[in-house]
Amino acid sequence: MVMFRFFADPRDISAKSIKLSEEDSKHIRTLRFRPDEKFIVCDSDGTDYICKLGERADGSFAEIVEKRDSRGEPTVVCKVYMSYSKGDRLDYAVQKSVELGAHEIILFESERCVAVPKDIPKKVARLQRIALETAKQSGRGIIPSVSSGGHFYSVIDEAMQNTALSMFLYECEEQQSIKNVLEQHYSQQCNIEDKTTKPISIITGPEGGFEPLEAEMARSKGIRIVSLGSRILRSETAPVIALAAIMYQTGNL
Amino acid sequence: MVMFRFFADPRDISAKSIKLSEEDSKHIRTLRFRPDEKFIVCDSDGTDYICKLGERADGSFAEIVEKRDSRGEPTVVCKVYMSYSKGDRLDYAVQKSVELGAHEIILFESERCVAVPKDIPKKVARLQRIALETAKQSGRGIIPSVSSGGHFYSVIDEAMQNTALSMFLYECEEQQSIKNVLEQHYSQQCNIEDKTTKPISIITGPEGGFEPLEAEMARSKGIRIVSLGSRILRSETAPVIALAAIMYQTGNL
Repeated sequence: MVMFRFFADPRDISAKSIKLSEEDSKHIRTLRFRPDEKFIVCDSDGTDYICKLGERADGSFAEIVEKRDSRGEPTVVCKVYMSYSKGDRLDYAVQKSVELGAHEIILFESERCVAVPKDIPKKVARLQRIALETAKQSGRGIIPSVSSGGHFYSVIDEAMQNTALSMFLYECEEQQSIKNVLEQHYSQQCNIEDKTTKPISIITGPEGGFEPLEAEMARSKGIRIVSLGSRILRSETAPVIALAAIMYQTGNL
Repeated sequence: MVMFRFFADPRDISAKSIKLSEEDSKHIRTLRFRPDEKFIVCDSDGTDYICKLGERADGSFAEIVEKRDSRGEPTVVCKVYMSYSKGDRLDYAVQKSVELGAHEIILFESERCVAVPKDIPKKVARLQRIALETAKQSGRGIIPSVSSGGHFYSVIDEAMQNTALSMFLYECEEQQSIKNVLEQHYSQQCNIEDKTTKPISIITGPEGGFEPLEAEMARSKGIRIVSLGSRILRSETAPVIALAAIMYQTGNL
């Protein structure tokens, strides 16, 4: 049986108990836990606390029973740079990326974006909420952050900074598959340090894909242009499949 | 620029032209193609015909300009056995499975299914429609079939017949990852013939997962029980990620 999972602010965690947020307290009351029923409170930093309500069962505090490393974090740190898409495509892409193990999601605007939200902070907040709920359900050890990265031009600069490998998902690429690039990256013996600590970045476009000029700009920055095979994947599917490829390659699937 | 894609019955394809279905004719008229504008008509059997409307531009016939192999078919044949799930989860799982390259989708009922449709033929027809639309959009060379496979017990028997490898996606499996099983399968030197021609089967459960007894039954039939990593994937995500793993392993990503 999978235990219910909550996240707490590390400052609310003491040696023996954890102060729960108002929202989680409310949720726990509706779940009607027995005093000895176990659930998990995660510190959003890779540690899980197995807890019970104990005698003080109003749901505002949890008694710590056991402490252990979160099991849901992959060994690879992935940043996903996602173009704005229409309808619920971004909701979906964020949810699935968090399930797959993305560390961070950065939204951006590119040439063919037809759905840049008028109120970006509101959109980011909504997607952050989806990331939190998905982190709880999928057993993550962190809450992946969702943020706005501005325009494509800023994003490709950022994606190359402090990264082990940056990949640009491009439906017109016919030479380099993501598999070739990942296998090559992980077979190289140099910079082993980088591969374990520095993030891998994925850059993915809107419904209409990227402009050839955007692909050229990314390439000129040193970003690897990759294909995801001969079938055309929808904009919300591509980042998830790229994450699956990385997780498979690195033994996290 | 990606060309529009339609599927035709092979019997409607002659040496120089193709009779289009009423529905596709209607669609083509709304798209207002120029007489020389190219589009693809696929015979649903791995051959694409590059066509134009020509002078007779009412959309009922397409003139064949060129014939070539469909590029969207993976080299591996995957059958996906999916448990009934609630809401739009199955819609999603079917759409993404077709994008990823599934050959066939078979729906079934298992112990923890909470949403077996009252009218199964209607559900199958709806999902077949999604498979067709997705096959057009993603550039497939076939229309993957969607059918009902009855109960779990029939399905596990069927999944073992005429298959190269059957995998049961189980969230409680902690030993065997899908990567281990696929790498082992593809590294074995024997039965090379089987690996290219016989299908790989995936069996995937509903929201609540499989019962331990179901996993035991599958194991006793010779089906491999596999994990998809330490994060809990939603029921609609798991089959898609398993397909991604197979496509990555076989060089189709």
